[in-house]
Amino acid sequence: MRVRKRKGAKEHLENNPQYVIVHPEKAKGRWQEVFGNQNPIHIEVGSGKGSFITGIAAQNPHINYIGIDIQTSVLSHALDKVLASSLPNVRLLLADGSSLKNYFADSEIALLYLNFSDPWPKKRHEKRRLTSITFLDVYRQILPEKGEIHFKTDNRGLFEYSLASFSQYGMILERVWLDLHASDFEGNVMTEYEEKFSQKGQVIYRLEASF
Amino acid sequence: MRVRKRKGAKEHLENNPQYVIVHPEKAKGRWQEVFGNQNPIHIEVGSGKGSFITGIAAQNPHINYIGIDIQTSVLSHALDKVLASSLPNVRLLLADGSSLKNYFADSEIALLYLNFSDPWPKKRHEKRRLTSITFLDVYRQILPEKGEIHFKTDNRGLFEYSLASFSQYGMILERVWLDLHASDFEGNVMTEYEEKFSQKGQVIYRLEASF
Repeated sequence: MRVRKRKGAKEHLENNPQYVIVHPEKAKGRWQEVFGNQNPIHIEVGSGKGSFITGIAAQNPHINYIGIDIQTSVLSHALDKVLASSLPNVRLLLADGSSLKNYFADSEIALLYLNFSDPWPKKRHEKRRLTSITFLDVYRQILPEKGEIHFKTDNRGLFEYSLASFSQYGMILERVWLDLHASDFEGNVMTEYEEKFSQKGQVIYRLEASF
Repeated sequence: MRVRKRKGAKEHLENNPQYVIVHPEKAKGRWQEVFGNQNPIHIEVGSGKGSFITGIAAQNPHINYIGIDIQTSVLSHALDKVLASSLPNVRLLLADGSSLKNYFADSEIALLYLNFSDPWPKKRHEKRRLTSITFLDVYRQILPEKGEIHFKTDNRGLFEYSLASFSQYGMILERVWLDLHASDFEGNVMTEYEEKFSQKGQVIYRLEASF
């Protein structure tokens, strides 16, 4: 997600350590202590402005959620939402998807979400796609055996690529939706982006895949 | 494919043994003898009125094709097309997809096509879908190791089901198209059905999966 650079974003994050984990490498292997309970931990890689992570956290108080984004300004907008909702089961993390092994122990994450990830349509940027083998190697390590990734996007090229990428990695496609909003899927939490583009008639694709 | 019952269809097939294989169980393991050459053999399960099988056979003279359908009337229309084109590399077979092990030896088929298969949308009819485990068991036997199935359909539910079915069977999705006609795929041979429905703006899905 590209957003305008926000003045004071860094300070905003630093001033709210109750939600934004400043030294995540110290939390590795002890995230349940961070949350103060034994509930399962779900993460969203590329959480953008945070409407998905706050929405789903409100729906499921007995699950802990961590929204992860690489951009300071983007994450600072997500922080606004977390502050406004005062949800006890959400944390935010400023990090790159490829560095997650530094912050999470093996199998520490129960479920991983990818929502409307940057499609990086050029072939030479394939490695940057969050569903490429580089990232799957990381996800596999922090998820348990048979751990799942739930992925949605409106980008046809990225979805085609991801179906093949997951399959060729040896993952199993558990369920696939080729028009999520026309399906009987229940409990969908829309991102801001999803709301905007589905209103324009854009099809939303979704899949659940397991290692 | 549902078509009107055609009078004399059975006799029409019987009168053309040069194209319609009457005792396919005798051809098992010796199909290359039937064709009189050593070219690879590709089959289409559910070949309908035969426009795909005759079209692709005309494009690829060094591949042998067998169109297979369970309905006498449907196959008799395919026979008309084969007769009109006088293609030497096409044969037709009146058979059920689940009985293919009786007609083909292990690994005798190089590639298997499924085009616009009956979606059988009701859950209780799942076993009748040509991409269900029952049929995959058969296909795996007559195809070689890493043998491929090329499948296309306009039916969203069937395509969603098939992506998951292939994957859960342990097959690998090699390539996926979520809007074939908007893609750069070359050499697509359209079925009559495909021509009609894509003109109405219906999206055509396609995949190539390997065992």
